[in-house]
Amino acid sequence: MRTRPLKVALLGCGVVGSEVARIMTTHADDLAARIGAPVELAGVAVRRPDKVREGIDPALVTTDATALVKRGDIDVVVEVIGGIEPARTLITTAFEHGASVVSANKALLAQDGADLHAAAETNDKDLYYEAAVAGAIPLIRPLRESLAGDKVNRVLGIVNGTTNFILDKMDSTGAGYQEALDEATALGYAEADPTADVEGFDAAAKAAILAGIAFHTRVRLDDVYREGMTEVTAADFASAKEMGCTIKLLAICERAADGGSVTARVHPAMIPLTHPLASVRGAYNAVFVESDAAGQLMFYGPGAGGSPTASAVLGDLVAVCRNRLSNATGPGESAYAALPVSPMGEVVTRYHISLDVADKPGVLAQVATVFAEHGVSIDTVRQQGKDGEASLVVVTHRASDASLSGTVEALRKLDTVRGVASIMRVEGE
Amino acid sequence: MRTRPLKVALLGCGVVGSEVARIMTTHADDLAARIGAPVELAGVAVRRPDKVREGIDPALVTTDATALVKRGDIDVVVEVIGGIEPARTLITTAFEHGASVVSANKALLAQDGADLHAAAETNDKDLYYEAAVAGAIPLIRPLRESLAGDKVNRVLGIVNGTTNFILDKMDSTGAGYQEALDEATALGYAEADPTADVEGFDAAAKAAILAGIAFHTRVRLDDVYREGMTEVTAADFASAKEMGCTIKLLAICERAADGGSVTARVHPAMIPLTHPLASVRGAYNAVFVESDAAGQLMFYGPGAGGSPTASAVLGDLVAVCRNRLSNATGPGESAYAALPVSPMGEVVTRYHISLDVADKPGVLAQVATVFAEHGVSIDTVRQQGKDGEASLVVVTHRASDASLSGTVEALRKLDTVRGVASIMRVEGE
Repeated sequence: MRTRPLKVALLGCGVVGSEVARIMTTHADDLAARIGAPVELAGVAVRRPDKVREGIDPALVTTDATALVKRGDIDVVVEVIGGIEPARTLITTAFEHGASVVSANKALLAQDGADLHAAAETNDKDLYYEAAVAGAIPLIRPLRESLAGDKVNRVLGIVNGTTNFILDKMDSTGAGYQEALDEATALGYAEADPTADVEGFDAAAKAAILAGIAFHTRVRLDDVYREGMTEVTAADFASAKEMGCTIKLLAICERAADGGSVTARVHPAMIPLTHPLASVRGAYNAVFVESDAAGQLMFYGPGAGGSPTASAVLGDLVAVCRNRLSNATGPGESAYAALPVSPMGEVVTRYHISLDVADKPGVLAQVATVFAEHGVSIDTVRQQGKDGEASLVVVTHRASDASLSGTVEALRKLDTVRGVASIMRVEGE
Repeated sequence: MRTRPLKVALLGCGVVGSEVARIMTTHADDLAARIGAPVELAGVAVRRPDKVREGIDPALVTTDATALVKRGDIDVVVEVIGGIEPARTLITTAFEHGASVVSANKALLAQDGADLHAAAETNDKDLYYEAAVAGAIPLIRPLRESLAGDKVNRVLGIVNGTTNFILDKMDSTGAGYQEALDEATALGYAEADPTADVEGFDAAAKAAILAGIAFHTRVRLDDVYREGMTEVTAADFASAKEMGCTIKLLAICERAADGGSVTARVHPAMIPLTHPLASVRGAYNAVFVESDAAGQLMFYGPGAGGSPTASAVLGDLVAVCRNRLSNATGPGESAYAALPVSPMGEVVTRYHISLDVADKPGVLAQVATVFAEHGVSIDTVRQQGKDGEASLVVVTHRASDASLSGTVEALRKLDTVRGVASIMRVEGE
């Protein structure tokens, strides 16, 4: 084994960073044996240098992250700051000064992944980011390496623990959205401002990263259709139950049936209770992958948290250090397929639509005509009427999102349709 | 991209090999893009050269596997023959003649993994074998690479599809073992001679491989305790249901609580219906991994079959080719921890024991005394009596297998115990 240590600079020492530093210290012998050389924490860049950080030598702490990544003797920079800047500049500076990078930064990878990969490649360095998607769950590496000889057709994932906790709570207790969110906040599963989670921004970043890797195509955050889950109601869960379904916020990356394009989207959807994703409880994450040869695979585990995320970061750190010792680099960006990313209108799926309608003869015929005119075929209809009010629940066969939108627009114009109570896609069948 | 192709020799062209060859041809452009150079099928060694093999140039087919691996211009040998010899000799010969090796051979890896890894290392070549455990499910790579910075404490897996199909059938239909086996045979899930599957030999080989990787310790096939599932009865499933459990044939690799030793075993066990492994249906495989930092992870997918196994082989092929282009090798054997493998007697778990006893006063007291004398603490007891016969169902707290064996031996000697109807371990709690 080489005795000269590999030097690691840690950018950020919050929940994840402090856990990375702790494990690097407590498991130093194991890491050395697995890498083939010792690893040494050479510097820790923080915003608040005066905070006491147990187990970290104060002499290593600095507020000057730029100087740290420019030192020139750093082998690997571990970036767990999050956000776009200064993370982006620090990472590219690190490459320019000879370091490889391990990052857990989903927002940055989703927005600027292509540029960062290019910077890594120019400098012949590694950029690894297993921790950016679904925390501890090995997902980037299986997609990028294990399935490298296969053709991935669909990735269907619960990639946000906060929203899964909320939806699971609504499902199991009948609670409304606000009540379930309050509980998630109280238990620390939701942040004070839960927007990034509940509006699907976090999941959309992960969808962009997953789609890019799965389809060997650049998928930007802007390419990902995004709908949050704040409007999911207890009534939606009741409807889902009647269909033998539950509701999950899903990140869905799909190759079109003709193989010529891909789509990426995040929205709440009904999935059958028999689907493996339906039983993913609490804040857990799980990602279902369908490919030509392997068939259906699922990866399940904790999608967030200091320790799980640190586990993913350290797995990458070992790989990058090993590459460094053998003067090699791991797989970089693979975007050779360069498939067009189609807009949401071209997505084809099934829909569950609840309409409030007048309780009088002929309404169903009117509604059915509108569906037919837009080429959306109806699978089942259920009518419930009382006191002059009635509801119609329509489940469609597979149709394009554009056709469905056109249908809904036309339905709203019918005098007999008082309102569209909910529209939800049905996935995983 | 390099234009000179990497040359691949395929040893074996059965269900898996023919699928590997097919995908290498149909997905040649994708593989080239992902590797950075084209790959070329340079030879196919078979036993029956006259069999028509669609899509394979007859000029590539040979019966002389030894000459093929000795050619000297082969970059990667893909071994999908199975069995110990001639596979072992062909693999070591391949290393000596400059090739890296991708294998799907669980029996060989479990028996001679250490020697094969040593041969690979001596010749500075790669030995990859993702397909040897759980077919298409990425498992070796996640354990060996993604969790390389973590400490794995337990691996709990359904790694044999045949037995899972049979047990699932027994669970869902109430069928007996023979009836479920007959159906599995009729549907092609069980072989004419199902011994390797139902007696747990196949799962034991996989357990040895998984334990070795998970604990960075050499675990030989002989180190794995093995019990088949041919004696699991419909009555056992009824007992399991009463406990809120089902029965699975599990491969269990554990680090002892003090961290100083490991165990590996295969046997049928009750697991709670709430455990993610309980809902693994049909011939699917799933492996549950518990580690210090990552927590609980699960990997799920098809554990066998031509296409899924080919997917795993091709993922390895891409990785090995990439390594070859950069003159590097991937992770080799990691056995530095060299922990002792403890015998089954030292395994600590819970037990579900059904006793046929005389229906008279004092029997429970006698039985309870025997448990106490052997230091096995009882969690629950259920008595059922009719017509002078009675049954006692005892569920224990955690105890060593040796203590439990001693208890059962003593119970058999009691006049009031007519027989021990079943003993089953309870896992996954």
